[in-house]
Amino acid sequence: MNTTDMIAEAPAQRRGGGRMGRKVLRSAAVPSLPTLVRKIPAYEIVPDEAVELIHDASLRILEEIGCEFRDDEAIALWKAAGADVAETRVHIDRALLLELVGKIPSEFTLNARNPERSVRVGGKNSIFVPMYGAPYVRDLDNNRRYGTLEDLNNFHKLAYMAPALHSSSSIICEPMEIPVPKRHLHIVHSALKHSDKPFMGIVTSKDRAEDTMAMAGLVFGEDFVRDNPVLVSITNCNSPLVWDATMLDAMKVYARHNQPLILAPFALCGASTAASSVGAVAQVNAEALAGLAFTQLLRPGSPQIYGQFMVTVDMKTGAPMGGTPEAAQMMYLMGALARKYRLPWRTSGFHVGSKLNDAQAGYESNMLMHAAILAGANYIWHSAGWLEAGLTCGYSKFATDCEQLVGWYKYAGGVSFDDFNEAMAAIREVGPQGHFLGTQHTLDHFETAFFMPTLMDFNSFEQWNAEGAKDHDTRGREKARAMLNDYQEPKLDEGVAEALQDFIAKREKTLPDTVN
Amino acid sequence: MNTTDMIAEAPAQRRGGGRMGRKVLRSAAVPSLPTLVRKIPAYEIVPDEAVELIHDASLRILEEIGCEFRDDEAIALWKAAGADVAETRVHIDRALLLELVGKIPSEFTLNARNPERSVRVGGKNSIFVPMYGAPYVRDLDNNRRYGTLEDLNNFHKLAYMAPALHSSSSIICEPMEIPVPKRHLHIVHSALKHSDKPFMGIVTSKDRAEDTMAMAGLVFGEDFVRDNPVLVSITNCNSPLVWDATMLDAMKVYARHNQPLILAPFALCGASTAASSVGAVAQVNAEALAGLAFTQLLRPGSPQIYGQFMVTVDMKTGAPMGGTPEAAQMMYLMGALARKYRLPWRTSGFHVGSKLNDAQAGYESNMLMHAAILAGANYIWHSAGWLEAGLTCGYSKFATDCEQLVGWYKYAGGVSFDDFNEAMAAIREVGPQGHFLGTQHTLDHFETAFFMPTLMDFNSFEQWNAEGAKDHDTRGREKARAMLNDYQEPKLDEGVAEALQDFIAKREKTLPDTVN
Repeated sequence: MNTTDMIAEAPAQRRGGGRMGRKVLRSAAVPSLPTLVRKIPAYEIVPDEAVELIHDASLRILEEIGCEFRDDEAIALWKAAGADVAETRVHIDRALLLELVGKIPSEFTLNARNPERSVRVGGKNSIFVPMYGAPYVRDLDNNRRYGTLEDLNNFHKLAYMAPALHSSSSIICEPMEIPVPKRHLHIVHSALKHSDKPFMGIVTSKDRAEDTMAMAGLVFGEDFVRDNPVLVSITNCNSPLVWDATMLDAMKVYARHNQPLILAPFALCGASTAASSVGAVAQVNAEALAGLAFTQLLRPGSPQIYGQFMVTVDMKTGAPMGGTPEAAQMMYLMGALARKYRLPWRTSGFHVGSKLNDAQAGYESNMLMHAAILAGANYIWHSAGWLEAGLTCGYSKFATDCEQLVGWYKYAGGVSFDDFNEAMAAIREVGPQGHFLGTQHTLDHFETAFFMPTLMDFNSFEQWNAEGAKDHDTRGREKARAMLNDYQEPKLDEGVAEALQDFIAKREKTLPDTVN
Repeated sequence: MNTTDMIAEAPAQRRGGGRMGRKVLRSAAVPSLPTLVRKIPAYEIVPDEAVELIHDASLRILEEIGCEFRDDEAIALWKAAGADVAETRVHIDRALLLELVGKIPSEFTLNARNPERSVRVGGKNSIFVPMYGAPYVRDLDNNRRYGTLEDLNNFHKLAYMAPALHSSSSIICEPMEIPVPKRHLHIVHSALKHSDKPFMGIVTSKDRAEDTMAMAGLVFGEDFVRDNPVLVSITNCNSPLVWDATMLDAMKVYARHNQPLILAPFALCGASTAASSVGAVAQVNAEALAGLAFTQLLRPGSPQIYGQFMVTVDMKTGAPMGGTPEAAQMMYLMGALARKYRLPWRTSGFHVGSKLNDAQAGYESNMLMHAAILAGANYIWHSAGWLEAGLTCGYSKFATDCEQLVGWYKYAGGVSFDDFNEAMAAIREVGPQGHFLGTQHTLDHFETAFFMPTLMDFNSFEQWNAEGAKDHDTRGREKARAMLNDYQEPKLDEGVAEALQDFIAKREKTLPDTVN
């Protein structure tokens, strides 16, 4: 990927700033773009009054219908906070809700094991994060099969090498050959070993969340991870309006360590919500706010991420759809709500229903990424690899997305007027019927003026044909293979690497090979 | 294509309105969506001051550098209007320029031979128009070869059948087997015969433009086409800053018939403009304004379309690129300028560099269409079929785009709050941990709430596999073939059909078979 040219134009990182901040972080082993600082305005698809209408409807849902919290400790915390609780149903009045949500910081730093890869999340700061959770992969030979630990290692390597990916995620694909009770150890280990970017936590049980924190502690220091965000974890509301015990357990572990959670109802709009975009948003907003408020009972002031994953359902088959206009519209509504609450927020970028990295995948991807960028999302998840509504991670799709992200990074960096006067001088120099290729302005700017992807093919038909007439999917697989050949591990300190291995070995002795 | 459900929600047509206006035009032989009335705000990527800066730079280009008009009559007209003319170089001061541009109506009706297919262009009104000018086709068997008249007929049939296409264009592909001097007759005939939507004029010579008007006169009435827009024609500035004799000849014929022209510099940004997005926009704006002003010397008050076609060039190879972030950003800038001038404006939607209807094509397509829609474009050209920087029209791409357009139509129709209270009632009815599939709200809205494309595949992997594991490109070809099988010609009046045939026969006798 010819990214160095683009990267030279990267917006200044918040903390660095100045001339150095505008450069790629060259001291790292591979080029890496700093936090994306958006320099374009957010798109507001509806007027403020419409946002207020949705906000009010969400608050009424929590006041009048309430939300389920299916965990004794959670219920006790809500009672102590003064909520109206009946068994597991919690009615939260708007004063209490907004007081709790108001404690969440609007921005936070997410620390990487390589401090140069640490990023900011919230406000104008956005990061791109690869996908999560695929049981299947579409592999380098274009076969669809179960994911393996080798695949997961590969995806962590690719995430490390992609300049515009700011995180390694964690379960990019499931290493299916490893028994479920032990799997989380190897997932976290792979993310920490193969990449030096921030990563994501495991949420499927309290013990696994604690193992994740213990392993993070071995890398970052136990004290450090008690207060400083190093990973982000996803807790999904069971729509409509149920936070279940597993998710609440994960919240307790992570929030108490000051580690940010994404409070993200996973909404199949039309099935788990009403068949109405605004109705779905009002419900999802209520679910997210209830989860966010709860985190502040666990640790006031802990960083959290407002979020959503909303796909529409084909009402004739029940299948989730990707890349639909309503999914984009709902992102804009969620973004407006996030800004109203001054919360960092997450949405999904390149998430698609397509089985292949084909035209469908492309149309779907940029329908949604365009909306994610213009809606001002801060944690842009599922930004690489996603196919088949998340069931499959594709190598070709992953490589494609990595290159596309560099373009989106540039897009969100805004329109530059820095060389406007020089450009106007070039027009005078050239005059009518000339061309600009030899002007000083062109010589000064040709490398950085425009995004120049290389995985996309803009050669002549004849050249493309002579090179094998390869479709994009084929080129994507070749690109992924080439990237993996070039990979060089950003080694952990030897002692840390051993400590991680020891921890895994010790834990594996106590864990069963099957789920009861 | 399962579009009837979407279509039922189509925004009211300006003239019709009311309940009937919200329905598809069912009296027509195939479903057809009325003019898209945008109900979402335009996205402003830069503040007003930045738009003013570009505007001022453009005016200074025309005042200080000037623009070439390479035609004696044009030069005489400019002199008579008081411009500062030296040979073919015209310096236009801002007062004169803005006075002339100010005569152009901000909206106009484009008449179709079937009055139900007439559309509005300008203001909040947008139309989708298929591609233009491809010498090659990628055919129903996925072969790339020269276009033929049969292909052109087919694309006009597809344009007729696509509910969200509002025009038949004209030279969707070139019928290469017909001698160039006679080709225009068959192109215009094919558009008029196979579709009842508005179409596009021929601009390659004065005689061909006059033939186009004569044929339009046979269909619409000679008197009618003297004053009422029935076709749109493209005149491209030869960037930088040259309007050549061929284009000026076409302008003279069409503007004097009150037929709108698109004044569209064809800009290869970085080669025919400076390597700067804002520099390119300032130049292209100057070129467009000069052309627009000239049309008002020909016929004051004639409807015209401000426009642009801007692709960036890969500065390492010189190849034009599609779907880049800068192309999208430049659309937003052009849109802001168009609104400042209160002019109808044209951009391009699904234009790509990809050779195939593959992932690259999809990413490129929705990068640009998303921008075209949010930038508020009125005449969204190249909205079906475009591949390979316009060298090829693909059947699969055409069918794909037609379905995607229905989604974009819905997107631009805005977020509906009409059933918000009912949706909120459904949440009360369902409560936590239920599902919405059986609620009255869902039963009332499941057919219209969400865009449900059928060419995109959202089935389970197993189902998709059982159906042949077809990629999107393959499904697109099958769809195009199925549409063509279903085609029924919207017949011309017999007398009109004969008159067109006679006209063509008579003209062919006088035209040579080769270009001198």
